[in-house]
Amino acid sequence: MWLETSCSLALNAPVATPFVLMLRPRSGAQQWVASEQYVLTPSVTAVEFTDQFGDLCQRLVAPSGSFSIHTGAVIEAADAADLAPGAPFVEVQQFPDAALPFLLPSRYCESDRFSQMAASITAGYAAGYDQCSAIVDYIRGFLRYVPGAGQQIISAAEVNGRTQAVCGDMAHLGIALCRALSIPARMVVGYLESLQPMDLHAWFEAYVGGRWYTFDPTQDALHGGRVSIAYGRDAADVAVYTQFGEPVDLVSMTVRVARLPGSPT
Amino acid sequence: MWLETSCSLALNAPVATPFVLMLRPRSGAQQWVASEQYVLTPSVTAVEFTDQFGDLCQRLVAPSGSFSIHTGAVIEAADAADLAPGAPFVEVQQFPDAALPFLLPSRYCESDRFSQMAASITAGYAAGYDQCSAIVDYIRGFLRYVPGAGQQIISAAEVNGRTQAVCGDMAHLGIALCRALSIPARMVVGYLESLQPMDLHAWFEAYVGGRWYTFDPTQDALHGGRVSIAYGRDAADVAVYTQFGEPVDLVSMTVRVARLPGSPT
Amino acid sequence: MWLETSCSLALNAPVATPFVLMLRPRSGAQQWVASEQYVLTPSVTAVEFTDQFGDLCQRLVAPSGSFSIHTGAVIEAADAADLAPGAPFVEVQQFPDAALPFLLPSRYCESDRFSQMAASITAGYAAGYDQCSAIVDYIRGFLRYVPGAGQQIISAAEVNGRTQAVCGDMAHLGIALCRALSIPARMVVGYLESLQPMDLHAWFEAYVGGRWYTFDPTQDALHGGRVSIAYGRDAADVAVYTQFGEPVDLVSMTVRVARLPGSPT
Amino acid sequence: MWLETSCSLALNAPVATPFVLMLRPRSGAQQWVASEQYVLTPSVTAVEFTDQFGDLCQRLVAPSGSFSIHTGAVIEAADAADLAPGAPFVEVQQFPDAALPFLLPSRYCESDRFSQMAASITAGYAAGYDQCSAIVDYIRGFLRYVPGAGQQIISAAEVNGRTQAVCGDMAHLGIALCRALSIPARMVVGYLESLQPMDLHAWFEAYVGGRWYTFDPTQDALHGGRVSIAYGRDAADVAVYTQFGEPVDLVSMTVRVARLPGSPT
Repeated sequence: MWLETSCSLALNAPVATPFVLMLRPRSGAQQWVASEQYVLTPSVTAVEFTDQFGDLCQRLVAPSGSFSIHTGAVIEAADAADLAPGAPFVEVQQFPDAALPFLLPSRYCESDRFSQMAASITAGYAAGYDQCSAIVDYIRGFLRYVPGAGQQIISAAEVNGRTQAVCGDMAHLGIALCRALSIPARMVVGYLESLQPMDLHAWFEAYVGGRWYTFDPTQDALHGGRVSIAYGRDAADVAVYTQFGEPVDLVSMTVRVARLPGSPT
Repeated sequence: MWLETSCSLALNAPVATPFVLMLRPRSGAQQWVASEQYVLTPSVTAVEFTDQFGDLCQRLVAPSGSFSIHTGAVIEAADAADLAPGAPFVEVQQFPDAALPFLLPSRYCESDRFSQMAASITAGYAAGYDQCSAIVDYIRGFLRYVPGAGQQIISAAEVNGRTQAVCGDMAHLGIALCRALSIPARMVVGYLESLQPMDLHAWFEAYVGGRWYTFDPTQDALHGGRVSIAYGRDAADVAVYTQFGEPVDLVSMTVRVARLPGSPT
Repeated sequence: MWLETSCSLALNAPVATPFVLMLRPRSGAQQWVASEQYVLTPSVTAVEFTDQFGDLCQRLVAPSGSFSIHTGAVIEAADAADLAPGAPFVEVQQFPDAALPFLLPSRYCESDRFSQMAASITAGYAAGYDQCSAIVDYIRGFLRYVPGAGQQIISAAEVNGRTQAVCGDMAHLGIALCRALSIPARMVVGYLESLQPMDLHAWFEAYVGGRWYTFDPTQDALHGGRVSIAYGRDAADVAVYTQFGEPVDLVSMTVRVARLPGSPT
Repeated sequence: MWLETSCSLALNAPVATPFVLMLRPRSGAQQWVASEQYVLTPSVTAVEFTDQFGDLCQRLVAPSGSFSIHTGAVIEAADAADLAPGAPFVEVQQFPDAALPFLLPSRYCESDRFSQMAASITAGYAAGYDQCSAIVDYIRGFLRYVPGAGQQIISAAEVNGRTQAVCGDMAHLGIALCRALSIPARMVVGYLESLQPMDLHAWFEAYVGGRWYTFDPTQDALHGGRVSIAYGRDAADVAVYTQFGEPVDLVSMTVRVARLPGSPT
């Protein structure tokens, strides 16, 4: 399906403030960026680089006062996320090297503390995709998904004591449990068509059966219409904006995703 | 200055044909991509990757029959290319590692055969930027620049016997001569505002005084308004399209660069 | 100074077990590997790759039963670690891209929770190297360094409530405090000449004044004779061995560092 | 098999001279470095980096006067190189991204000029491994292999007019012909057990059937006992030493490869 996405930030900085932004989706195996926009008002110098996970990042210094960032794209995304019940666990020695960082514990996914819990949740399931599905079911069983934004980011260990959670919390817990089973898992931030209320979304991917598969504990059935903006170990790696220095006022953040009737021309 | 660029290819392939394209400019220290388009007609799956020089490359299989690729962008480019007469030669042991491949001979820049000629051309000039300028002057002195396209690509050694040359030929010779002096030099393919007749353009950059500087032997005075699409050792690395298998008919290629009156909003 | 280092592991695995090892020091700006050994007994196939931080990592499957890994090296290391009181803070927009991951919070360095503490500890100090020194002094003031090994790894937030700590704990706290001030900081695991009792050691480096400097909260005065084995965000990235699956028995681990009288021939 | 290898260079430089060396074999899927030595006399500062093809490179400035470099290693190498008659051609769109540079023409492999010749040589052979074998047979049929060293490096186009050739020449021609068929091919420099007279050796690898296979036009039957030192597009990328500036006198170069009776301990 073809999607038109946009994310607009209005900021107010007390002093000139350095930012690292991750707001330019890349074309990849699952999505094609047919057009995009990235407008800074007022216009400032920005430099782009590719981070260690392949994400495009933009570095700039926001001037003091009002500053806005508008990004938009027209992207072809898969109609449905691939499912693969029964896809087998990949032995650690068979992973591509690039998957190994996604086995290690990270800031918000303390996988080193979840071995017993992961074993218990997945007891009786075939190693691989079915373990991941069992983990998603477990998370959905005890956590009620509530949309939200602006909360302090919490880690898998902290999520574990809650009864409700935002999308990132649920992804953190899913990732920590997968890694505890030696399944590489990574966080994705992106757009999801038909999300209610519309916002940026977070989910995770697990490496089973020789490739990455999408898992989303916020959903009963896995929707398609996903546009990935950034991949990383957890929320620390995939913040769409990271500012340094004095806190900056986020005046507004507007996210839109519209399905286009057909291919753009 | 703000530029609106486009490059459109119409192809006719006898059979389904794999392509590697380099048609998506990246934001970097010298240019900012404010918006862009990349439309394939008919729509086919394309995958993007970053090559060893940091360029974005798109892989796809063109279907048999008519196929068109339209890319366009709105980009902020520097008004003038930086000049640095007197910028010193950088000792080899001080280069960043990433500059070293640009010291080696390559397909179209046989720098290993140009030591004497480079020494002779630059005799009496200060090591560094001024040597590069002397090389550009020398090339301009014996080669008449003729716009062109579609010729067989020729190497610096072959250019050397000619009296006229296209932009890429002149860049190849400039690069070979710089490398022969242990000055890293790389080829750039991109857009140049006000080029007559409009087409893609090629020039080179040399690493002196601690950074890359632009040199363009096709010009008397160095124009600004440049948008880089791809960097590489020579034309072999920066082809905007490389096809494999049976020859494909390039029905048309249209390049446009327009200067915008002000910042886009 | 010339050092002869070795690290030998004897393991006993109940079943064939995948490992990722980081036991081959690399030659770099601060150290030169003149000779090295890496012996696996029994001999098994091992594959080496370079991780995202530039470390050499070895992947292998340890057979069930007894397995030993012996690594040794003769390395030239700096006599003294460089000191740079007054070296200035580098603005975020000036960092090399590769330093940015070392500004983010990580598994054992929850820098997002240390802003106030870092500001309080470094109040009155010049931004940059002197802030790092103040952090080291602070850590030394309330934590007693105790050599140790085999404990559960704890994070900066957990260290904060203790009165004594191992080297890695102190490094984690130092890193978290530096990052909270927007100073990139990374963990180093390696050898330290004259450490008592001899063991692998951990310290940290901070990026100030345009390069990485060594800091070691376990020491009153900064010793030289350091050999880096691995760099990373924290202990999760720099484990000299990471095993997957069933726990493996570490029968023994022997570390030796001897100073050689002169250059080896 | 276990091999003990060494390469020693004695140089005499008129002035301090920058070098890039590639003399430290890496452990990889086909070989394991159990021990190694790298001794510079007199001792000078050297810095190591990983190039774009994954090779370890050492940068240093040789002092004026006598300078020697001694490198040695004990390495486990495969007893026999893998053969795979019938292994199929891999479609360009299926290659890993990292194989693409090895499809392009390079300094000494002008594959853009070899399409007809490659088609003619391989007419009637199955696409893939068998084409590569036909190319090797063809090269062996018209070129007599003569050991040699110190000649000017010549390109595939130049080799084509000769009747005898050194190992690198034959590899260049083999690579150019493979690439002309859209088969990625790369040059390897390394040690070969039982080579007569002993010297460094060059051969090539082609990507067919989903992996890289070894081809060596200097040999009737493919020997095992190979240790790779460096991979690249052609001889320009894999020079074991590249010097810059005034010519340096290579006083001697000694290469040794001895087969060890068993595993070293």
